[in-house]
Amino acid sequence: MEKSAVGCKAKNARGCFCGDTYGAMPRIIESVPNISEGRRPEVVQAAVDALGRVPGIRVLDVQSDRDHNRSVISLAGDETSLPAALLNLFEVAVERIDLRSHQGEHPRAGAVDVVPFVPIEGATMADCVALARRLGQAVAERFSLPVFLYEDAATAPHRRNLEDVRRGQFEGLADKMRDPQWNPDFGPAAPHPSAGVAIIGARMPLIAYNINLGTSDLEVAKRIAKAIRHSSGGFRHVKAMGVMLEQRKLAQVSINMTDFKKTPLHRVFEAVRSEAERYGVGIVGSEIVGLVPAEALLDAADHFLRLENFDPSQVLERKLRQ
Amino acid sequence: MEKSAVGCKAKNARGCFCGDTYGAMPRIIESVPNISEGRRPEVVQAAVDALGRVPGIRVLDVQSDRDHNRSVISLAGDETSLPAALLNLFEVAVERIDLRSHQGEHPRAGAVDVVPFVPIEGATMADCVALARRLGQAVAERFSLPVFLYEDAATAPHRRNLEDVRRGQFEGLADKMRDPQWNPDFGPAAPHPSAGVAIIGARMPLIAYNINLGTSDLEVAKRIAKAIRHSSGGFRHVKAMGVMLEQRKLAQVSINMTDFKKTPLHRVFEAVRSEAERYGVGIVGSEIVGLVPAEALLDAADHFLRLENFDPSQVLERKLRQ
Repeated sequence: MEKSAVGCKAKNARGCFCGDTYGAMPRIIESVPNISEGRRPEVVQAAVDALGRVPGIRVLDVQSDRDHNRSVISLAGDETSLPAALLNLFEVAVERIDLRSHQGEHPRAGAVDVVPFVPIEGATMADCVALARRLGQAVAERFSLPVFLYEDAATAPHRRNLEDVRRGQFEGLADKMRDPQWNPDFGPAAPHPSAGVAIIGARMPLIAYNINLGTSDLEVAKRIAKAIRHSSGGFRHVKAMGVMLEQRKLAQVSINMTDFKKTPLHRVFEAVRSEAERYGVGIVGSEIVGLVPAEALLDAADHFLRLENFDPSQVLERKLRQ
Repeated sequence: MEKSAVGCKAKNARGCFCGDTYGAMPRIIESVPNISEGRRPEVVQAAVDALGRVPGIRVLDVQSDRDHNRSVISLAGDETSLPAALLNLFEVAVERIDLRSHQGEHPRAGAVDVVPFVPIEGATMADCVALARRLGQAVAERFSLPVFLYEDAATAPHRRNLEDVRRGQFEGLADKMRDPQWNPDFGPAAPHPSAGVAIIGARMPLIAYNINLGTSDLEVAKRIAKAIRHSSGGFRHVKAMGVMLEQRKLAQVSINMTDFKKTPLHRVFEAVRSEAERYGVGIVGSEIVGLVPAEALLDAADHFLRLENFDPSQVLERKLRQ
């Protein structure tokens, strides 16, 4: 049998001659700015160009929605490239988006409405909070925009939830900000006339995760969703609802996982399995919609394979990137 | 609720403005040359230096074994950097290792004994086979060394298994190669006087995977190992034996997975669970020793979470590296 360093069982017991070939993991942070423009492609393109021309920035995805009149841009970079790119984005948006004439189904409080920072690799939540504060201060100074910090960057519990910060929307901001509870974290005490405010924060990656049930009874999916979601007594970092997959005639528990480290995929999967059994229903399958951090799936493998002392640094591809 | 492109459920249903920001996945191939030197650190260091001075090469790990008088070097690169680096390695080994005076427990047929290429990311097995052939030809021409291709690069079924190609070792090569069945794939028809032959090939990554049983009865582990390994009727790509963890007083099924795509981790885990149950024994835990390709664990998560239509390109970190 050929010996191999990949999977060599004596790996840590012997000497290694290459101690100095390892470097630090590059720091990767994601940002997902939401801008209040989804109908004029030329404005969205200008925003994307403004982000992408900063070296070290990768624009990963752009989703525009006409009904919402909103675009969601996903980009990756580090603590240096991200603030530079996002300041470029604010420049385009503040100049070309006027909320006084903006209409759309989605609630919004700013031309650049929301900017979360998300730790992906080699970066901590604390790094992302620091980044949110730095960008907030710079945006306030350069554009005279009030800035609110939210989620993990929030400076008070009542500012943590994005929905609470945005409640009243652009049209209600002047009134809302007269209440000292809603003094901004940076910038002037009244909204910008055309660009409103900016809501900047730090959060974990979201995972859109759906579990398909072996039943066409929507009521079962609704009851299970209620059982597992935080708002009705379930897991802390789960939002869920029951929906019908009309084509497949299957009921689905549609889930947003807002912190997969604290509420992991496998625990939600097992809870849904257990609740479904109570109705004599099985799990047909599950699906991850869009992107998922590798760690969320490694954690699931770790759980189901009952791994002992598994360390993500054992993943070959990670080692290669170090 | 904030909209996010990470996990956006409408991801593929809407327009994207950034079609040209994606590039090709960089091609990563691993090679794990085994050289017949484990006692003279200066020779091993010279071999590692020879590999590492080629741009684009990452030396990941070096394991030397005095008893075996053998070193296993793990490196990563692409189709350009790997042959250049490995030719440097042959140069050092052919000059400084003389098998006529070499002693060690491990069977060996060459100064550089075995060179497998392993597809890691963005590369196929066919790429690795082509690379094995190219290196084999270059080695034969430059060093007048006979080269045998093995595993997925083998040119005949009887040359596929490394153990068969190496049988008889250095000392038996001259005799063995008189049989036309053992004409080399490249190079002269007789072994090099001091460096023997080289065995070059392509194979899947190995995974060293152990499953710990809730019993101190070694016999149970041995029976399960026999049930799952290929040589006694089990899975095609599994080698296994029963061993005793003396400190923990647990019996262990110690496994080498030689092709995790065709015989996946979860299938072996479930087979061991089922066999153990027959003795009233549970699985206490399992462990991965050394490195593991991310895909092996993603496949396990996919299985246990019953994912539908999951594509590894949904993994955020992969997308970032494209």
